[in-house]
Amino acid sequence: MVVDAQLQKPLRPKDGTAGIERPKALMDSIAEDPRHLVALSSRHVVSSRQFDRDTLTQLFRLAAQYESTPALMHLPLQGKILISAFYEPSTRTRLSFESAWHRLGGDIMSITDPKSTGMAKGESLPDIAEMFNNYGDVIVLRSNQDRAIYEMLDTLRIPIVNAGNGIDEHPTQAMADLYTIFKWRPELLDPELPANRRVRVGIIGVPNRMRTVRSLLLLLARFSSAFSEVVILTDEAQPFDPGQQEELAEQGLSVRVAQHLNAELPGLDVVYINAIAWVGDSYEAMGADLKLSTASPLKQEAIILHPLARGEELSTDLDGTPHNWYFAQARGAVFIRMALLTCIVRRISEVMDTP
Amino acid sequence: MVVDAQLQKPLRPKDGTAGIERPKALMDSIAEDPRHLVALSSRHVVSSRQFDRDTLTQLFRLAAQYESTPALMHLPLQGKILISAFYEPSTRTRLSFESAWHRLGGDIMSITDPKSTGMAKGESLPDIAEMFNNYGDVIVLRSNQDRAIYEMLDTLRIPIVNAGNGIDEHPTQAMADLYTIFKWRPELLDPELPANRRVRVGIIGVPNRMRTVRSLLLLLARFSSAFSEVVILTDEAQPFDPGQQEELAEQGLSVRVAQHLNAELPGLDVVYINAIAWVGDSYEAMGADLKLSTASPLKQEAIILHPLARGEELSTDLDGTPHNWYFAQARGAVFIRMALLTCIVRRISEVMDTP
Amino acid sequence: MVVDAQLQKPLRPKDGTAGIERPKALMDSIAEDPRHLVALSSRHVVSSRQFDRDTLTQLFRLAAQYESTPALMHLPLQGKILISAFYEPSTRTRLSFESAWHRLGGDIMSITDPKSTGMAKGESLPDIAEMFNNYGDVIVLRSNQDRAIYEMLDTLRIPIVNAGNGIDEHPTQAMADLYTIFKWRPELLDPELPANRRVRVGIIGVPNRMRTVRSLLLLLARFSSAFSEVVILTDEAQPFDPGQQEELAEQGLSVRVAQHLNAELPGLDVVYINAIAWVGDSYEAMGADLKLSTASPLKQEAIILHPLARGEELSTDLDGTPHNWYFAQARGAVFIRMALLTCIVRRISEVMDTP
Repeated sequence: MVVDAQLQKPLRPKDGTAGIERPKALMDSIAEDPRHLVALSSRHVVSSRQFDRDTLTQLFRLAAQYESTPALMHLPLQGKILISAFYEPSTRTRLSFESAWHRLGGDIMSITDPKSTGMAKGESLPDIAEMFNNYGDVIVLRSNQDRAIYEMLDTLRIPIVNAGNGIDEHPTQAMADLYTIFKWRPELLDPELPANRRVRVGIIGVPNRMRTVRSLLLLLARFSSAFSEVVILTDEAQPFDPGQQEELAEQGLSVRVAQHLNAELPGLDVVYINAIAWVGDSYEAMGADLKLSTASPLKQEAIILHPLARGEELSTDLDGTPHNWYFAQARGAVFIRMALLTCIVRRISEVMDTP
Repeated sequence: MVVDAQLQKPLRPKDGTAGIERPKALMDSIAEDPRHLVALSSRHVVSSRQFDRDTLTQLFRLAAQYESTPALMHLPLQGKILISAFYEPSTRTRLSFESAWHRLGGDIMSITDPKSTGMAKGESLPDIAEMFNNYGDVIVLRSNQDRAIYEMLDTLRIPIVNAGNGIDEHPTQAMADLYTIFKWRPELLDPELPANRRVRVGIIGVPNRMRTVRSLLLLLARFSSAFSEVVILTDEAQPFDPGQQEELAEQGLSVRVAQHLNAELPGLDVVYINAIAWVGDSYEAMGADLKLSTASPLKQEAIILHPLARGEELSTDLDGTPHNWYFAQARGAVFIRMALLTCIVRRISEVMDTP
Repeated sequence: MVVDAQLQKPLRPKDGTAGIERPKALMDSIAEDPRHLVALSSRHVVSSRQFDRDTLTQLFRLAAQYESTPALMHLPLQGKILISAFYEPSTRTRLSFESAWHRLGGDIMSITDPKSTGMAKGESLPDIAEMFNNYGDVIVLRSNQDRAIYEMLDTLRIPIVNAGNGIDEHPTQAMADLYTIFKWRPELLDPELPANRRVRVGIIGVPNRMRTVRSLLLLLARFSSAFSEVVILTDEAQPFDPGQQEELAEQGLSVRVAQHLNAELPGLDVVYINAIAWVGDSYEAMGADLKLSTASPLKQEAIILHPLARGEELSTDLDGTPHNWYFAQARGAVFIRMALLTCIVRRISEVMDTP
């Protein structure tokens, strides 16, 4: 019997960023306060701007509770229907949301082929929103048009979640990013964190053209006490929209721009890399020198985040190192989405005592 | 915090055509008689011709029961599998059927990409039907070929529902249309309705080239005591197939053709508009003067129906008026499909006492 | 009321190869030994080579148990998520797996459009595998690349099932093929079968270019005591890979090549026909004379198998004859997949007593 050796091996055990210890520790570090989650009932999720520090903190707590619970005894979303509308195809984000929804016991209707939709036939966005009202309980929308989700809001009577709208925002990705950072160091949630415990974040990306970066910066600003500085690494001459930096500064987030990655790396605790910039209908790679590998001068304790899918900017030789928190980040995205979806469809009382 | 004002608002309350009062009133006006629903067990649904007045009336009653029940205690289709086969793409109709099925607790396998199917590779329709026999409990089929569903019937051992076959029929759409009319005025179901309570229906469309119109006329004829006249508004010289008008006349439905919409509108109680004519593989708009807006000379009490998606023929300025029953029509389509599907997969005894 | 006669008929009763008698008889002929099924826990299913005779026999028993049980009282896969990843489109195989999974109570996320996936955007197979780890409990993969599934194995921490990889293998199809043969004659499972009860199998196909044929031969070899000879019917000069025949011979399976179908048919008990050879990205029909119809000189008792979809090589005039076991084969594929999936996701203890 000639079978590949891999087929005889037991499945590989989980790596150190998996397991239930870290989410359990994060959960234990946060006092439960369900009022902030109840307040999310029937709310749309369009922009990171909608979320304050307390609400985010409670979402992280609930996500950590889900992640540290191997199997739910009770499925809070039974009988609820998700409309998973990916007008811009994205297998990764779609599966993440759909997995979250299924784990909570809900049913799903998917739209994955933009060409087969009413939108392709010229149907208006408000009319599509009215259709969604009748057929589902919540919508997850990915679109390559910034305005699409906004044009639906007036019509919608069910909540909608922005899963990426053009170059504008991707708020649940940013929540997953922060959830990862706080699983790594729960102490960063402490508003009284001593200055010498703060961390420096590097973001390889363009704030005014990458939705993940835009949304992440907005959420980092909610926890500005945790971050001594954010360094934007880019070749772009104008990486910000007018007012974008000022909005962050008002909340105490110090943002600086730099061009030389390797010069900054020795001072960075968190390195966020995302080499895909959305430009019209196509992708554009960032500058060729903004790449990470085991040869990069990373701090020993530094963690790397990447919203994935990755290209050449993030070498696979980092996968087996303790710097790799991007896989934990992808894994955690399911749990933060579970937390958020539970709240907006008004089922938080199924998983915790509410006032 | 700068967030769009819409994101701060609570979700818009339902309009006057929603709510449970109207379906409750319709339900209460019909005496329950489950025998007609039991007789639908394991039956195909291909043509409006298959349905008599009593069966339709009981289906409307069950639909109204579903619509006026906020959440089902018991899911009658648990363990049943729907094959949702849309060989002609249609997000709206597909989601309507899939939402109906999910609300009843069933599972779904969707075919949304015609190019990926056996049919595209030259597999015969009977072979596809035999495949469906083995993998599901019921099929919903949309095809741009009139004959496709008929070529499957001899092979099928599970029921199939016609969700639109070319320019032939779309019987569940017609059921949704009538369900809406009877929610509007339950008295129209009375076979002894005085002549002066009858209503006049205008249909902007072509009976021999539009499946929705063909199926609707067949069902209107089952309730000819309710309708003083049907006026077909069209520019076509030959809007009927041979025998089509005669078949309707035999059942007492008076059908007249007219060309000038605005001349007829002051006399119409129900205005059915459907500007999309299926012609081969493409769409063709109707005459440019057959359009509705708030400037149209509508009767004050008149309601407008449209199977949607709409184009320019139906102005959005009517959306906020009491004439708008097309949104209620789309909403109701879910419940009539729930009623029908419950019956054909032999689960009616799960939702009512049966003989 | 003019309705097609077919719509008035009750649904056609099942044919002789359906029903629960045959699977019941097969089940009763096999002594239950769950150890072999427990050993499949968390195992990948890539090649027919992974399966020994005892394991296959117990899988056939469990499949027969599922097939002879009209409705499961208990759904063993509730809360489990299948990632149904068909990078090469195949409605038939996809629906077969998805139907199996749904009947066991599990949820599904489907990937049916290769162009919308990360793979199309250049994402690596290990990265896709890592994504799958986070979002599902098991993967079913169809790909037109032989190596795709192998390149995922090192990364995967959840089991993957090969649903066809290029021209390499399709092991669950081969299991369905053998399951059909043993339902036809359970005595063939007897290791002490007298030589005069053995059957002769003809395979119209090319072992080194057809994944179904390659996988089937490997499984036939596990039961070489049942088969007096396998005759490969092909026009190809080199129908075997180096070593392919020798591997089979070592296990006692006698394989011979012939070119003239009609000369062999009178000596064949089982005729396996599969006219579709995978060649790069396109299909290629086999020799035009390798066709079956009622005019073919079939043994009276012979059964015909075909993995479907069929083309011109298998005449529909055989559908109504007792030779037709290809429909039973398609039907049985659901149950063998149910059996296999139950085991690999570690839920066998939900359906039988395990040690």
